[in-house]
Amino acid sequence: MYDLAIIGAGPAAMSAAVYAARYKMKVAMVGKLPGGYVNEAHAVENWLGDKSVAGPELVARFFEHVKSMEIDIITTDVRGITKKDKTFVIIKEGGEIEAERIILAIGTERNKLGIKGENEFLGKGVSYCTTCDAFFFRDRTVAIVGGSDSACTGALVLADIAKKVYLVYRQGELRAEPTWVADVKKNEKIELVLNANPTEVIGENTVTGLVLDTGNTLKVDGVFVEIGTTPGKAITASLGVKTDEKGYIVVNDDQSTNVPGVWAAGDITNKNNKLKQIIVAASEGSVATYGAYLDKKSQK
Amino acid sequence: MYDLAIIGAGPAAMSAAVYAARYKMKVAMVGKLPGGYVNEAHAVENWLGDKSVAGPELVARFFEHVKSMEIDIITTDVRGITKKDKTFVIIKEGGEIEAERIILAIGTERNKLGIKGENEFLGKGVSYCTTCDAFFFRDRTVAIVGGSDSACTGALVLADIAKKVYLVYRQGELRAEPTWVADVKKNEKIELVLNANPTEVIGENTVTGLVLDTGNTLKVDGVFVEIGTTPGKAITASLGVKTDEKGYIVVNDDQSTNVPGVWAAGDITNKNNKLKQIIVAASEGSVATYGAYLDKKSQK
Repeated sequence: MYDLAIIGAGPAAMSAAVYAARYKMKVAMVGKLPGGYVNEAHAVENWLGDKSVAGPELVARFFEHVKSMEIDIITTDVRGITKKDKTFVIIKEGGEIEAERIILAIGTERNKLGIKGENEFLGKGVSYCTTCDAFFFRDRTVAIVGGSDSACTGALVLADIAKKVYLVYRQGELRAEPTWVADVKKNEKIELVLNANPTEVIGENTVTGLVLDTGNTLKVDGVFVEIGTTPGKAITASLGVKTDEKGYIVVNDDQSTNVPGVWAAGDITNKNNKLKQIIVAASEGSVATYGAYLDKKSQK
Repeated sequence: MYDLAIIGAGPAAMSAAVYAARYKMKVAMVGKLPGGYVNEAHAVENWLGDKSVAGPELVARFFEHVKSMEIDIITTDVRGITKKDKTFVIIKEGGEIEAERIILAIGTERNKLGIKGENEFLGKGVSYCTTCDAFFFRDRTVAIVGGSDSACTGALVLADIAKKVYLVYRQGELRAEPTWVADVKKNEKIELVLNANPTEVIGENTVTGLVLDTGNTLKVDGVFVEIGTTPGKAITASLGVKTDEKGYIVVNDDQSTNVPGVWAAGDITNKNNKLKQIIVAASEGSVATYGAYLDKKSQK
């Protein structure tokens, strides 16, 4: 029986785990991918103390920290969580674990365009991860869809490798940090296609084009989709955890939820959702653990 | 005229400044001591990604990050802030600067015991900074007053240097992280003096003893005081910023205050006050800047 099980493995989960170990709680961190989406970050330039660091490098440092402490690291997906009396049962590959308290740091899932051809050409030109797949488009022409930080940094990564990059966004102005917008605008390989929505991915064996609602079709070899993320709902629903209309978990100042014994931290919360940043997620993880620690102390 | 002036120079201020520069705001950071109290930390072991780092080393990394960006760093005390129409006027040594928005990241001041002899022997055995002054007590006997993380880590630092360390605390159990409490308890040089309050510092030219309300007098050469901090009130009062009963600035989820154009972050806020951690302060700084940035954009 764990004092605390942390569900997830991103920055929120890792910071929560470090704090729990320092509070001498018996703690498990259960999640498939240490670092989560930070692994896909081309460059992180706003983690205080690091002028510029590649996402995977920052993740490696985070994970070394976690591994150096008394934390049971269980690298697997969580299939579900149930509650028996006051105990949480976490169902994972190869069995179950039990905990008195849990922190949900389960992050979000990538949004899809929901257009014709998108699923058909997945892995044949359609990708949701620039950092993972940009390399396959050396000297080719690609489109990337979105206007956020992720879309702009994705476009910059692609421009390093591809011959030409179309950045397709539905609004008239990109919504990324001005630093990234400026970098995108001065990059000669990137062409902005604003006020445009993709309607179909076309191709034969692989992608050959992206049809837009402007009437144009971009001739491209690849389509990258960076249009945000959505919180997963399965676990929150099964536990009765309250969410907002978009599915983000509603948390109090101390990261507690409406369900006793359940805290939440990181991209899955309605608080962090306003500014999805590594530093904010890590802070929420530490605050959530502090709440769980006070709860444990109060029950002694 | 700055888009944003950040008052303070600790982790909250530095993270706020980094974010502001990335948002391409014209920004000044005005504060006397880069890093604030982090400079006094013997070891930081819960900043995600660093297993153990000396406070001044972490501060140096933070400050290098700030210095690498377009931020006006003004290393001086702020004497006061006034408001002329919608402009904030920051009065500092050698003149004034003006800003459209401010973030108060002004931290807190150290609490004093308020007992006889405390002021008299300041610098003659009485100290509020273990990291600064422990070195002067090599092979001597000292007392440290308090039960927090700072008091326990202070006792551990002193035990490395002094012959004997009394840790004096008013309650029956230390309130620090269990990791620190365990380290203190197994350290043979540290003797716990619990359920005891100091009533007088005695000495001749320098400290010779600490009188307790238990009737005992500890024969010591030095007295370290680590009994928490209190928010400064001058600046918040002059601007009409709402505080709680203890003087901490009341902030909303986005770190805004009751005064338009004023955000707050770090130890000075009522939110961070519950868990005074570097990671939480840095997060609050980034969130505050994001609020100021949205405000600037909305006024275009």
